[in-house]
Amino acid sequence: MTGHTIGIDLGGTNLKAGVLDPSGHLVLHGSIPTEADGGVDHVIRRMAALVEELADEAGLQRQDIEGIGVGAPGPLSHERGIVYNAPNLPGWVNVPLRKRLSELTGLPVVVENDANAAAFGEFVAGADRGVRSLVLLTLGTGIGSGIVLEGQLWRGCDEAGAEMGHVILIPDGRPCPCGQRGCFERYASASAVAERLAEAVRAGQRSALREQIEAGRTPGAREVLAAASAGDEPAARIWDETCYYLALGCITIEHLISPQRIVLSGGLTNAGKHLLEPVRAHFARLRWHLTQPSVEIVLSTLGTEAGIIGAAALARKK
Amino acid sequence: MTGHTIGIDLGGTNLKAGVLDPSGHLVLHGSIPTEADGGVDHVIRRMAALVEELADEAGLQRQDIEGIGVGAPGPLSHERGIVYNAPNLPGWVNVPLRKRLSELTGLPVVVENDANAAAFGEFVAGADRGVRSLVLLTLGTGIGSGIVLEGQLWRGCDEAGAEMGHVILIPDGRPCPCGQRGCFERYASASAVAERLAEAVRAGQRSALREQIEAGRTPGAREVLAAASAGDEPAARIWDETCYYLALGCITIEHLISPQRIVLSGGLTNAGKHLLEPVRAHFARLRWHLTQPSVEIVLSTLGTEAGIIGAAALARKK
Repeated sequence: MTGHTIGIDLGGTNLKAGVLDPSGHLVLHGSIPTEADGGVDHVIRRMAALVEELADEAGLQRQDIEGIGVGAPGPLSHERGIVYNAPNLPGWVNVPLRKRLSELTGLPVVVENDANAAAFGEFVAGADRGVRSLVLLTLGTGIGSGIVLEGQLWRGCDEAGAEMGHVILIPDGRPCPCGQRGCFERYASASAVAERLAEAVRAGQRSALREQIEAGRTPGAREVLAAASAGDEPAARIWDETCYYLALGCITIEHLISPQRIVLSGGLTNAGKHLLEPVRAHFARLRWHLTQPSVEIVLSTLGTEAGIIGAAALARKK
Repeated sequence: MTGHTIGIDLGGTNLKAGVLDPSGHLVLHGSIPTEADGGVDHVIRRMAALVEELADEAGLQRQDIEGIGVGAPGPLSHERGIVYNAPNLPGWVNVPLRKRLSELTGLPVVVENDANAAAFGEFVAGADRGVRSLVLLTLGTGIGSGIVLEGQLWRGCDEAGAEMGHVILIPDGRPCPCGQRGCFERYASASAVAERLAEAVRAGQRSALREQIEAGRTPGAREVLAAASAGDEPAARIWDETCYYLALGCITIEHLISPQRIVLSGGLTNAGKHLLEPVRAHFARLRWHLTQPSVEIVLSTLGTEAGIIGAAALARKK
């Protein structure tokens, strides 16, 4: 029974976790509310309890478990095992998560940025096992990213790399809370879709979503897509622009890193082919024709399980 | 005497070469005209002759030489040892350079993209030996780039990576011969400086370089800088904009890859601090302030020797 690992995805709303068997298959998974308002200690105790629950359910003793991997929102340090600051988790400032969770569980713990964990999950268990290099983009409130090169996470010097969300896509463009202007995530995240439509409506454009926006309820990316599909002109334009911006970001990734795959994941990818097809079309139109594309743009096939699997797999690598 | 390697930089005008001793020091170097008009065979024979000449001068027998590394203009394949197309070298289409030069010299040969070779040279012999990761930018007619991560060249899938010159910096911007619009090299290469000034003058701006430009002699980057230093307004603006664009490119490299160093080299860096200081100032102004920069932007200390040293070092690694 030895050689199992447990992966945890620490989210603002839910703690998700799963057990990976020695051959790397996810054999069991579960989810409980994070109860982030309970504070740091409360959340870490819940993580430990979830680990115990899953281990029991899987019939595993402590010695059967090689380690625990946690994918957590950053900024954090994998090297030091510390979460510096998790904006969606009250009180999470400079939390030595590796040490605390290890003390509670008696098991080795690795802590990883959640997008890095998901990228590693796509590498170990994604659609194409032959892929040795990929860049994952999580298109949600912001844009997270993870880079796998030759089967290893590339974190960059001082673990500062893989921040594709803050590559400047449009010089002097939309202001970003990070302090820069024109960041990729201000144009191609799920929340950027909604924000840009709300702006267009406030600027006087006619849209079926106008009433809702004026009532102060910013529509989600899903609603923008539904309106676009129903023929709403500003919604359709903003959806297409989003795909254009995503394609520009993919060209940056292709020319600089040239991974085998760019894997799109996160809320925006619920749109499926309505996202993937226009992104691929813009990419084909915008990029040079000196060479055939070496990169393939795909949607994640693992969804939220990528983070759990990746975190668990990283616990094995330790 | 064993363990020496020879590096060659194959340029459109000159063949430069040098001998690296077993401890990695450049002990001898030489240069002869490429005589590219003589055709492919002629150039390869000249490369072999230059190798022989340097070996004689260094008192080396064939068995003292571990191999030859050639930095060549691309596109090419290191993997296959073939130069696909070298626009500045007449007739160089699908040339199996590795095989041909190896047959002529009786020595193992490796072929590498010239910017990759220079990047590797900066890694093995650059200013700071403690650096394990860097991105080199060669700012000349275009912008070449090479990426070293953890002491290894990162070439990307299908060797298609490290093409920072064709990352789209300005969406829908200046057309590039590659077929894209807004490529980094259309804004921040040495030739882009000259082109943009010529355009400004043709658009009616007053400049001390007007007469020269109207006579059809596009000024070099050096002349633009001289005019800028002498108070020429369009020249000063375009020089500063160039540094701004370079800083934007450095932010892309920092957030995505986060190497320890970005090394600037090539013709534009003859400007020394007049380039480096404004690039660093724009970089500091434009990037976020969430973290201190993990990357340091520096000028190459090796100049054209980087390519020779890197190519020779790659011959050793084989």
